[in-house]
Amino acid sequence: MVQAELIHTGKTLLSQQEFENLAQRLSNWGRWGADDELGTLNFITPETIKNAAGLVKLGRPVSLASDMAVNPAANNPRPVRHLVYRSDNKAPSGAFGDHFSLDPHGSSITHIDALSHMYYNGKGYNGRDINLIGTSGTPFNSFKTLINGITGRGILVDLPRAAGKKFFEVNEVATADAFHKALSDANVTVQSGDILVLNTGKHARFGEKGITATAQGLSGLSIACAEFVHEKHVSAIISDCAIDPQPSEVTGVRIPWHMMTLVFWGMPIVDNADLELLAATCAELGRWDFFLTIDPIRLQGGTGAPVNPIAIF
Amino acid sequence: MVQAELIHTGKTLLSQQEFENLAQRLSNWGRWGADDELGTLNFITPETIKNAAGLVKLGRPVSLASDMAVNPAANNPRPVRHLVYRSDNKAPSGAFGDHFSLDPHGSSITHIDALSHMYYNGKGYNGRDINLIGTSGTPFNSFKTLINGITGRGILVDLPRAAGKKFFEVNEVATADAFHKALSDANVTVQSGDILVLNTGKHARFGEKGITATAQGLSGLSIACAEFVHEKHVSAIISDCAIDPQPSEVTGVRIPWHMMTLVFWGMPIVDNADLELLAATCAELGRWDFFLTIDPIRLQGGTGAPVNPIAIF
Amino acid sequence: MVQAELIHTGKTLLSQQEFENLAQRLSNWGRWGADDELGTLNFITPETIKNAAGLVKLGRPVSLASDMAVNPAANNPRPVRHLVYRSDNKAPSGAFGDHFSLDPHGSSITHIDALSHMYYNGKGYNGRDINLIGTSGTPFNSFKTLINGITGRGILVDLPRAAGKKFFEVNEVATADAFHKALSDANVTVQSGDILVLNTGKHARFGEKGITATAQGLSGLSIACAEFVHEKHVSAIISDCAIDPQPSEVTGVRIPWHMMTLVFWGMPIVDNADLELLAATCAELGRWDFFLTIDPIRLQGGTGAPVNPIAIF
Amino acid sequence: MVQAELIHTGKTLLSQQEFENLAQRLSNWGRWGADDELGTLNFITPETIKNAAGLVKLGRPVSLASDMAVNPAANNPRPVRHLVYRSDNKAPSGAFGDHFSLDPHGSSITHIDALSHMYYNGKGYNGRDINLIGTSGTPFNSFKTLINGITGRGILVDLPRAAGKKFFEVNEVATADAFHKALSDANVTVQSGDILVLNTGKHARFGEKGITATAQGLSGLSIACAEFVHEKHVSAIISDCAIDPQPSEVTGVRIPWHMMTLVFWGMPIVDNADLELLAATCAELGRWDFFLTIDPIRLQGGTGAPVNPIAIF
Repeated sequence: MVQAELIHTGKTLLSQQEFENLAQRLSNWGRWGADDELGTLNFITPETIKNAAGLVKLGRPVSLASDMAVNPAANNPRPVRHLVYRSDNKAPSGAFGDHFSLDPHGSSITHIDALSHMYYNGKGYNGRDINLIGTSGTPFNSFKTLINGITGRGILVDLPRAAGKKFFEVNEVATADAFHKALSDANVTVQSGDILVLNTGKHARFGEKGITATAQGLSGLSIACAEFVHEKHVSAIISDCAIDPQPSEVTGVRIPWHMMTLVFWGMPIVDNADLELLAATCAELGRWDFFLTIDPIRLQGGTGAPVNPIAIF
Repeated sequence: MVQAELIHTGKTLLSQQEFENLAQRLSNWGRWGADDELGTLNFITPETIKNAAGLVKLGRPVSLASDMAVNPAANNPRPVRHLVYRSDNKAPSGAFGDHFSLDPHGSSITHIDALSHMYYNGKGYNGRDINLIGTSGTPFNSFKTLINGITGRGILVDLPRAAGKKFFEVNEVATADAFHKALSDANVTVQSGDILVLNTGKHARFGEKGITATAQGLSGLSIACAEFVHEKHVSAIISDCAIDPQPSEVTGVRIPWHMMTLVFWGMPIVDNADLELLAATCAELGRWDFFLTIDPIRLQGGTGAPVNPIAIF
Repeated sequence: MVQAELIHTGKTLLSQQEFENLAQRLSNWGRWGADDELGTLNFITPETIKNAAGLVKLGRPVSLASDMAVNPAANNPRPVRHLVYRSDNKAPSGAFGDHFSLDPHGSSITHIDALSHMYYNGKGYNGRDINLIGTSGTPFNSFKTLINGITGRGILVDLPRAAGKKFFEVNEVATADAFHKALSDANVTVQSGDILVLNTGKHARFGEKGITATAQGLSGLSIACAEFVHEKHVSAIISDCAIDPQPSEVTGVRIPWHMMTLVFWGMPIVDNADLELLAATCAELGRWDFFLTIDPIRLQGGTGAPVNPIAIF
Repeated sequence: MVQAELIHTGKTLLSQQEFENLAQRLSNWGRWGADDELGTLNFITPETIKNAAGLVKLGRPVSLASDMAVNPAANNPRPVRHLVYRSDNKAPSGAFGDHFSLDPHGSSITHIDALSHMYYNGKGYNGRDINLIGTSGTPFNSFKTLINGITGRGILVDLPRAAGKKFFEVNEVATADAFHKALSDANVTVQSGDILVLNTGKHARFGEKGITATAQGLSGLSIACAEFVHEKHVSAIISDCAIDPQPSEVTGVRIPWHMMTLVFWGMPIVDNADLELLAATCAELGRWDFFLTIDPIRLQGGTGAPVNPIAIF
């Protein structure tokens, strides 16, 4: 038996044409009708939610987000601007207020990408014309479908654990072998509606080696896993990175996972999660699935928003 | 038997001194130690979370928030400023980004108040000196304790339903009688850790009569219910208003419920929820309790943030 | 002799084709070379600046701006968001800081339009491709040419005075007759490099009749004056409105003055000036020309910025 | 004759008590009445403005500001957030808009400090109680007195030139000897209403050695010059630094020049000017005085704003 290759660095897997062929083959455009904006959230059903609630056995919640950084860092040139102010400096009793501004996307904030975040050849999910998206917001593929949040079974795919290391280095890509080994180690079978939670140990690496700029590379998951994820009817993916390794495995397509999930599948994704505590909890409890909620604020017309996904064991 | 009084308008119930006596008597300062910042979230336990998950019987989620308004309105002089932008106007494939700024407090956005939002006589929850709160944020009573979200059993206290009307008018106050009738109608017994969800029908009224400015009055709940809420170990309160009726029932204290919950009890509250769909769902299903999650973004140092609480039946 | 028509309301003067013919005929594209971004600021020379300084005879400065509004109004749905904060609430000595955000364009803030603000058929001033303008700013026709400010002779064209009324009503258009009568009343001859300051009495009307929304109409100047302004080598125009009357005099072109000045001439313009004090000063002193400075902040890549033009008599 | 000491590094000149005695002695509180908010702008008169206009001999304008930085740097942790957006992505003709947010104070933006920026022992200029300053702005010592801008004679005090070097190093303080040598070299006599422009060569140093954080020190002017500036009736000071050297020459008072000018004298100051081109122009022309305008936007209630001061030779 050949030794599984769990990590690669800098390999090109697909040409742009091959990626487009794959995207075409796996596309969900039209699958749920021309008007659909739910995409893979169609896989979430009353049944999957009910079953997921059954995973709350200990009543132990774990956040999958990190605190929102308010200072510039290598991965965060435009940090959240946050001001706390006292409404009245003289009255003994009163209130403090907040004002904050932010760009949810980028490499720092734990945020959800709505389907409208990306487009390919001028089209968004379900073939929509992105020229209709204006400054005041997008009329489609926005937060409308996220109003009731995303609830379901989460599965931690703990890639460093599978690879026998503490974290993936910058540029290191988890192969399909690593992905399947992590699932196998977790002893779970992916089912329709499941939410995959991909850990590459990014925050462990930040803690040990310091924060790096996105331009220096990003650990991620091989696009070779796309077909499996598609077949299993996964509803959403959360990752500590942005799924997409940098540099890209696909020639001419900088972030193929973003294109595949958001544009071709209609699958919302969460970037920049902090999965250290989740991974430790899973390892401690010896289980890698859990009840999971993602409750985005109702920023209609938006293409992304900060979130705090909560796993409950 | 005397006919229950379900609504009053403009009555004064307490003097400032009487309110302070009540607050003193019901205060949780020191109850969980001098360092405590959890306040009434201490009533949430693995057991209460587990039991709450058992309420997911249909797998049917309902949002308790409204869309974030981006235009000025009578109740919203400073709406969210939200911009969607295309990263590159020439490339056929690419991304849209968002920038938004907001003040979470006020009378429009569905938002959570962290304990640090209010202070009384220079002190915040657990006696903390509010002069330590600066522009860059509060070092205590902030979102630290909200990291893992708030999860538990929610109970809809449907006050218009109890009062046999569609909605409370501006200035109308739900009395303790109305409150207890709503609980009795719902056939639920409040238990330790429960999250109360107070509906005064504000959004139904807005829909029928238009949006009104806060200065014109706010429907709310009588402060006469404070002792009951305290005794039952409620963990948090969500309301479609701000709990506090305007004008106030307490002479010299503009928003006594805010002071009681945030400052004296250490109880986070959610203002400006939209409870129309929740109320309709409860009435349809004939049950007024449900699994409830509030997952605030991790805005460390903040005194409030927009939220999207999700009930699951 | 025919009575001059000083005001019209709602007349259409040109078809889109006629406007385009006019724009073509008066275009400055290529006039100062293919690389030019100065446009009509080329008419400002050391000589015109020196001569303008000679107009400082009394040493009396007058602002042409209004205070920046921080509350929503009919003409201002997105007011400036401005926060003042104390850096340290405990130290007896210290500092206050400011944070503010704004959109300079619109109908409220006194602001300058850089040439890049407008485009016609995909082209900006001097034929530049507007697809090169991205979210992070414009690489051309921006504030680069405004670095040293705009200095020159200002001439108040006091249209209400010429028309014998206090202010123009919403929708009222000052005709070429009114324009020339105002110049004639002022007893000035427009010279190369001059800055025209057009008063329609908008703030006087706001004061008497209240603020109106732009959708209700805007007083302005007839496009019939374009040829004269072009021939006289005017360098810039400041107006209390936006020059362009609403509804437009040109079928199919909503704001032809903006297109003519910014796109075809390369002429920066200032909108929403408050000219009440200036008009009163001119009338008091019996002179309608003055030294004028516009010193925009150096917001590189921007298409507009708030300004405070100062006339000195 | 003793050799003049032109530069010192790290010397302490005054104790806090001595500074307070000095401030008391030089204070302008009450000088122009209890209601005065103009402070040293009272020294600007029609006569000084008229005389200043006489300095426009060449018609040559020079900006004293730098471009506003939109990326974080060592001296700029919170850069301007600036977005340019296209109003309509489909129409061939239309507009671009801007949204930007900023904190004017700090060590990067060329900005003016209104008198309300600083306070000493709880008091602002003319003894005003700073507890009256709230989040929505200051009711006094704000931009009200800056409405008509600041116009007058500017004098470049070119300290590196006086010291025979290209720029002052971080921490280097220009002594009173250097200050007077620079004035003497410039062959100008300071007169009532003059605006001093202090160059320490900061931007030349940044260009050669890179941008440094404020915590590493700031070149500045010795507080020993305060009495002279006060006696000469200077109206305002512009500097490329913040006047105040860091570390401070005064024990217990971090920025004594800010306290002296803003609080005790009522003198507005401009920080972070870029004076490289001005210094080169002065040297080229052999004259160090010029007509100068500072036209701040009308941000009522603000304590500071970005500016673009323009010198005209």
